[in-house]
Amino acid sequence: MSNQKLFNVAVVGATGAVGEQILRLLEERNFPIQTLKLLSSPRSAGVKLNFKGNPVEVEVATPDSFEGVDIALFSAGGSVSLDLIPEAIKRGTVCIDNTSAYRMDAETPLVVPEVNIDKISEHKGVIANPNCSTIQMVVALKPLYDRYGISRIIASTYQAVSGAGALAIEETLRQTKEVLEGNAVDPKILPAASLPVKHQIAFNAIPQIDKFTENGFTYEEMKMINETKKIMGDDTLEVTTTCVRIPVIYGHSESVYVELKQDFDIEEVKQLLADAPGIVLVDNPAEQQYPLATDAAGKLDTFVGRVRRDLSNPRALNMWIVSDNLLKGAAWNAVQIAEYIAIEQN
Amino acid sequence: MSNQKLFNVAVVGATGAVGEQILRLLEERNFPIQTLKLLSSPRSAGVKLNFKGNPVEVEVATPDSFEGVDIALFSAGGSVSLDLIPEAIKRGTVCIDNTSAYRMDAETPLVVPEVNIDKISEHKGVIANPNCSTIQMVVALKPLYDRYGISRIIASTYQAVSGAGALAIEETLRQTKEVLEGNAVDPKILPAASLPVKHQIAFNAIPQIDKFTENGFTYEEMKMINETKKIMGDDTLEVTTTCVRIPVIYGHSESVYVELKQDFDIEEVKQLLADAPGIVLVDNPAEQQYPLATDAAGKLDTFVGRVRRDLSNPRALNMWIVSDNLLKGAAWNAVQIAEYIAIEQN
Repeated sequence: MSNQKLFNVAVVGATGAVGEQILRLLEERNFPIQTLKLLSSPRSAGVKLNFKGNPVEVEVATPDSFEGVDIALFSAGGSVSLDLIPEAIKRGTVCIDNTSAYRMDAETPLVVPEVNIDKISEHKGVIANPNCSTIQMVVALKPLYDRYGISRIIASTYQAVSGAGALAIEETLRQTKEVLEGNAVDPKILPAASLPVKHQIAFNAIPQIDKFTENGFTYEEMKMINETKKIMGDDTLEVTTTCVRIPVIYGHSESVYVELKQDFDIEEVKQLLADAPGIVLVDNPAEQQYPLATDAAGKLDTFVGRVRRDLSNPRALNMWIVSDNLLKGAAWNAVQIAEYIAIEQN
Repeated sequence: MSNQKLFNVAVVGATGAVGEQILRLLEERNFPIQTLKLLSSPRSAGVKLNFKGNPVEVEVATPDSFEGVDIALFSAGGSVSLDLIPEAIKRGTVCIDNTSAYRMDAETPLVVPEVNIDKISEHKGVIANPNCSTIQMVVALKPLYDRYGISRIIASTYQAVSGAGALAIEETLRQTKEVLEGNAVDPKILPAASLPVKHQIAFNAIPQIDKFTENGFTYEEMKMINETKKIMGDDTLEVTTTCVRIPVIYGHSESVYVELKQDFDIEEVKQLLADAPGIVLVDNPAEQQYPLATDAAGKLDTFVGRVRRDLSNPRALNMWIVSDNLLKGAAWNAVQIAEYIAIEQN
């Protein structure tokens, strides 16, 4: 991008786990920034964060913060987005929202660039960034959807604690240390700080992420189901999910069963995945190579492996999908969208 | 059991993780023992183990060890079973084998007492104990199979490291400590000591348990598929599995999608599960109650929760099944079989 337009950019929730990654990516990707505003709640205001070697002071996010801002990336919780995005839009800011606030809004595009970048142009001031567990799954499914059609998806997740925020990471490390030392643990954060009952995450698997809905699925599970249909633009997709938190710090893993609408050649499937944007195929059973959360941590790609034809259903296959939930699952997908907006306006 | 017959019992592999639990259960359950022989490889021979307050010396297992033995419980690896079970049978011993050596042998009953105890009487000297991940799944599925019929099962597992033996537990604890201290880890055991490539288990999820077969599924996955059909006595069952090791010490968890042959009432399903032998229903989303590996550890039952009607397929439901892999998944299922043999012979 030479002779390119430069943008006034704001990051809302700059001191959070995702905000921190957004800042790092804007720097690393050399995003065309004219001015950078870091915004947060009053609690974190005054903190100085480094950007390209210069300290930038975090300011309290208010409606007026968005005066003159071209692009704002929000990851400060749903209520902050609901309060401030309308104000930002009024002031001409294009908002990229990492919370669930606008995702299922009919007027708001829900975008994963590898899947439906064409939807960006339909925005009315806000583009929603999907849930972490959804993003990596649709990236992996898109090439199969385009080639064969997909009728059904059954997914079980193995989600990292960083998805529940910095306090959940601290709790996991603290609890793990307590168990190793033979001490009792006193869970305080997971499955979610806002929920009344807490469970041990150290050396455990918690089959609850977010609150329960009335149908027995959790909000996290319903997000995966509904967002997948919206991003793929296909309401006929049958999607089932079970979302589970495990003691991994960075990187969600997913065991996904997919029924295709046509017969397929499994080697062709692997080639399609290997050639698709944003995907790295790691699939060599003979060498025990498959995606691992510890390998995916810190990377921007979605890693796919264990791709195999189902034995019971000839139209189905199984796969293992891993990506860094804070990067492709949040910050990187948001920065990718910002990059597309920047290109569009150049 | 009063005025009951007493049995000469042998435990082969007495010093292993499962052997230790078998011994503890024989003691706790007050199994009707006349004499107890503890057998092992030459490496562990000479060790003294405690049984009901008395030290019992572990002897080297040889063909002659089985002279006069009524019931022998084997958990010393497949090759030991293949070598010694024919010798034990020649000497009139009824063998309960916890390895995979005889499981798929057409002449050998593969028994989970809650599911197919009737098969015990068909044995020709050896009764096979299924794989840990299979046992807890079939216990949970049996009441649904009997009431509605089952057409398809899609399972993803969250398996504890104790399933890979005492060294895997040590490795997991050691690696975890290394990560917490910021040191590099040097994986030596998992996914399996016999495999050339090792992966980090601390804060990770490894989608490989046992070797790969040629179809891209692992042996563990194929065991679950084939053993489930054999135990349920139904070759038409469509079963898909993805088996994953996670950093949990005791207790396998399973996310299971089940397609029934008939429509069902979800409350009736929960009642059937609650009333079934060997199952504890832990399913109260409002109170955030569901089975957890840390709660199941040390218990004999199979815990079932997150039971919910599928949203995409009206004949399907989802559930979360947890049990202690060393107990119901191994030692307890074997001791249960021994108890049935003892009752039969009284």
